[in-house]
Amino acid sequence: MSKRITVHNKKAQPIYDIVIEKSFDLLCDELKKLGIEKKRLCIVTESKVGPLYAEEIAALLQNQAKEVHIFEFPYGESNKTLNTVQNLYEFLILHKFDRKDMLLALGGGVVGDLTGFTAATYLRGIDFVQIPTSLLAQVDSSIGGKTGVDFSAYKNMVGAFHQPKLVYMNLSVLNTLSDAEYLSGFGEIIKHGCIKDADYFHTLQAQLPQVLARDLDVLEEIIATSCHIKRRVVENDAKEHGERALLNFGHTLGHAIEKLMNFELLHGECVAIGAVAAAHLAMKKNLLTTEEAGKIEAVFAGYQLPTKVPAKLSASDIVTATLNDKKMDAGVIQFILLDGIGNGVISRAVTQEDMLDAIEACR
Amino acid sequence: MSKRITVHNKKAQPIYDIVIEKSFDLLCDELKKLGIEKKRLCIVTESKVGPLYAEEIAALLQNQAKEVHIFEFPYGESNKTLNTVQNLYEFLILHKFDRKDMLLALGGGVVGDLTGFTAATYLRGIDFVQIPTSLLAQVDSSIGGKTGVDFSAYKNMVGAFHQPKLVYMNLSVLNTLSDAEYLSGFGEIIKHGCIKDADYFHTLQAQLPQVLARDLDVLEEIIATSCHIKRRVVENDAKEHGERALLNFGHTLGHAIEKLMNFELLHGECVAIGAVAAAHLAMKKNLLTTEEAGKIEAVFAGYQLPTKVPAKLSASDIVTATLNDKKMDAGVIQFILLDGIGNGVISRAVTQEDMLDAIEACR
Repeated sequence: MSKRITVHNKKAQPIYDIVIEKSFDLLCDELKKLGIEKKRLCIVTESKVGPLYAEEIAALLQNQAKEVHIFEFPYGESNKTLNTVQNLYEFLILHKFDRKDMLLALGGGVVGDLTGFTAATYLRGIDFVQIPTSLLAQVDSSIGGKTGVDFSAYKNMVGAFHQPKLVYMNLSVLNTLSDAEYLSGFGEIIKHGCIKDADYFHTLQAQLPQVLARDLDVLEEIIATSCHIKRRVVENDAKEHGERALLNFGHTLGHAIEKLMNFELLHGECVAIGAVAAAHLAMKKNLLTTEEAGKIEAVFAGYQLPTKVPAKLSASDIVTATLNDKKMDAGVIQFILLDGIGNGVISRAVTQEDMLDAIEACR
Repeated sequence: MSKRITVHNKKAQPIYDIVIEKSFDLLCDELKKLGIEKKRLCIVTESKVGPLYAEEIAALLQNQAKEVHIFEFPYGESNKTLNTVQNLYEFLILHKFDRKDMLLALGGGVVGDLTGFTAATYLRGIDFVQIPTSLLAQVDSSIGGKTGVDFSAYKNMVGAFHQPKLVYMNLSVLNTLSDAEYLSGFGEIIKHGCIKDADYFHTLQAQLPQVLARDLDVLEEIIATSCHIKRRVVENDAKEHGERALLNFGHTLGHAIEKLMNFELLHGECVAIGAVAAAHLAMKKNLLTTEEAGKIEAVFAGYQLPTKVPAKLSASDIVTATLNDKKMDAGVIQFILLDGIGNGVISRAVTQEDMLDAIEACR
């Protein structure tokens, strides 16, 4: 059983489909709907994912598109930079890509964000398609049109909003992920339950055994549910003027920890730590009961995600890094709290002291 | 007498005003309407314009905004690069600019394009205001939201559409321009008449003496007329899917010449040469009479703009550079011709041979 979720703009017009499959077999048919017979395609990927799937996909598309090229860059967040973007611009110019041509982002969040930003800015914008291969990218970063690269160690400091023309995911690729990479995706998935859907949160709690066994049918339901939650949020608020900020639950402290740890921890792991700290903060503000905050910590821990702030990071360094992060709004920090499980809220009343306390509570 | 022209989106909602004044006196009042009391402002300028006006403007705004900073980069098209953009990102991070803060582009097209691109991509987009100080920027590049930088010697290869919040022009700055810089602006102005308004074209022909004397009242009328033409075109087609391409009249060959001459000729000068060659091509295709094509050449020449292709450039090099330019559409070149003066048309039937002939006819 495959699934299709359509993302709409604020006028309720369809803008792109999220297609959830268990192979790459239908990718070509989906791309044909976008008129690839007249287009040059560039599969953009990195050195871990590329060798696994890039040639297979290129072979599928070879006779269906005008040309198919592969651009591969070295794996890792440290390569999500303007330098890599410039290498990709060079490659596109060399192969004479014009405004009607298209990029395919094959990989995790790093590839999707970087390819999307390149597509947003090459010739003032060309089309791109997301083919997310990490669980994190499938449920989160491939949807919603946020693109960007890191700059001077600031995550996504440079970017643009640019919607993909299609998100195509092949769930069978999840079997090749390491346990840590795979489980990291649940940092964002559990977050979706926390901010928007208490039933989903409890389902995730119950389905842990099937998830650990990588049961693709259970995963398909989970991924589709997360895609629906993300879709609804970005449809309501494409450019993060309001509700979309809820998706940053766990990210304010999480990003700071990720940066201070030099990206040694995976993104979803940092989100888990940040979410547990935020839950503690919500408890202090009487928005969550002690029991609820404990349940949140237990679910992240059940998914083998860290819930403690790394001992080597000082609380004040984390808060300073947070204040330098971009989730500031005219000098005031926007912090996402939960008013009960399933109900994310935006708070502008979180002080530095609140954050310091929450961090110390998660040691 | 000042003038105000409002630019609308395709739903006919106002998005920003073009304010034409003869001093900077009202800039602060206009910016107050945009809520600058809560914002950090960064005046972005270059080393020729900055020393003339940046401190004056900073002093006007100092007590009205939260903070006012000045970022100056070296003058010239050769600095319209991602390198300069990255220096500006660093400056904004250093001064803790967030999503609610604002950039002011003070200068000609290079400053406007680069500042607009930085604003489009810093934190996925912040606000910016155009304060164009060259005639070319006043009548053309400051309006319509095209932003970008050059890459590997390709003009505007990297960019985004990002609309300013205000375009404020002080016509008195035109008195400080050299004759060549000043007259270069008429490359775009005469182009506006050619593609959209025969009466305007003939008015320009008649008003040459006042223009050469830099009569500010006559100039105000001309600038307002050009701004109206540009406004109408970009309102109809913000992202250049159709009519907006007409603004590229003279630019297809003009850009190639500009690049091959290493930017020794001014942009408006190259547009003049490109426009005369395009008029010749239109004549060959029986869209213009010999008399009309001659009149077009005579008006550009009257404004002391070059109308001959530089002797040192080979026609085949120009055509090759043109084919590498981005005004290609799925491999077919879009060439703008005139079907009578005042009536620009998009042609997809111009061959390389047509271009070679037109170039040789302009020696």
